Amino acid sequence: MIKIKILSVGKQKHSWLEEAIKEYEKRLTGAVQIEWLLYKSDDQLEANAIQEKRLICLDPRGIEYDSPQFSQFIQKELNQHGPRLTFIIGGALGLCEALKEKANHTISVSKLTFTHQLARLILVEQLYRSLEIAKNSPYHK
Amino acid sequence: MIKIKILSVGKQKHSWLEEAIKEYEKRLTGAVQIEWLLYKSDDQLEANAIQEKRLICLDPRGIEYDSPQFSQFIQKELNQHGPRLTFIIGGALGLCEALKEKANHTISVSKLTFTHQLARLILVEQLYRSLEIAKNSPYHK
Repeated sequence: MIKIKILSVGKQKHSWLEEAIKEYEKRLTGAVQIEWLLYKSDDQLEANAIQEKRLICLDPRGIEYDSPQFSQFIQKELNQHGPRLTFIIGGALGLCEALKEKANHTISVSKLTFTHQLARLILVEQLYRSLEIAKNSPYHK
Repeated sequence: MIKIKILSVGKQKHSWLEEAIKEYEKRLTGAVQIEWLLYKSDDQLEANAIQEKRLICLDPRGIEYDSPQFSQFIQKELNQHGPRLTFIIGGALGLCEALKEKANHTISVSKLTFTHQLARLILVEQLYRSLEIAKNSPYHK
């Protein structure tokens, strides 16, 4: 079982987001367990993220992969460091320098700025897609 | 009133997507009217899209803007060609060559491949964001 921790800011509940994320979590059942750590502010998020051992930061200025490259990246991480991944989703202003320095990888899902909510959904969909690509399933085509 | 037509493939209804899109459409009330043209297949989508006069294609291999650049792009289109924009969202395999040739612009929201559903939500959120950036509102910060 792969355990993925995702740290983000989440002040409000959005029922559409909960529903959409649940859909992907359901598909990942048995293979991946996602733990959400949602904080009330960027400061709180960063103070907690800095405690993590290994960290993948999502930031608009990070490296951009296409979906097959993202899948390879995930597989390599799992092979080299075991079945635990920790992601942090930064706010619109990006992550603080201390976190960027600490991050093992800083990747970007787009040059565009998204809301935290949308970034959470994109990340979960891409994690699901990356496993489907690795399995060579028809989902991603 | 800005009228935006979005052509995409939409075989199934997803209640979370309807809800999320409705949220942005509500915020755009009075300023922007979005007309959705959802087709059952890529072929049907392309056959209809080719009839459009001016067309902005969304394709992972298009030009990538950041959100302020996307906002400038939208403003320029509106200033030069009037308050109507037509977008087409391609499938995972991208759009056919005939459409790419016909397109006035081909832009990419990410190098990653997304589902049609997610691409629709991203486009609507960025359209809303682009108008907020043009108004210099605090939404995008």
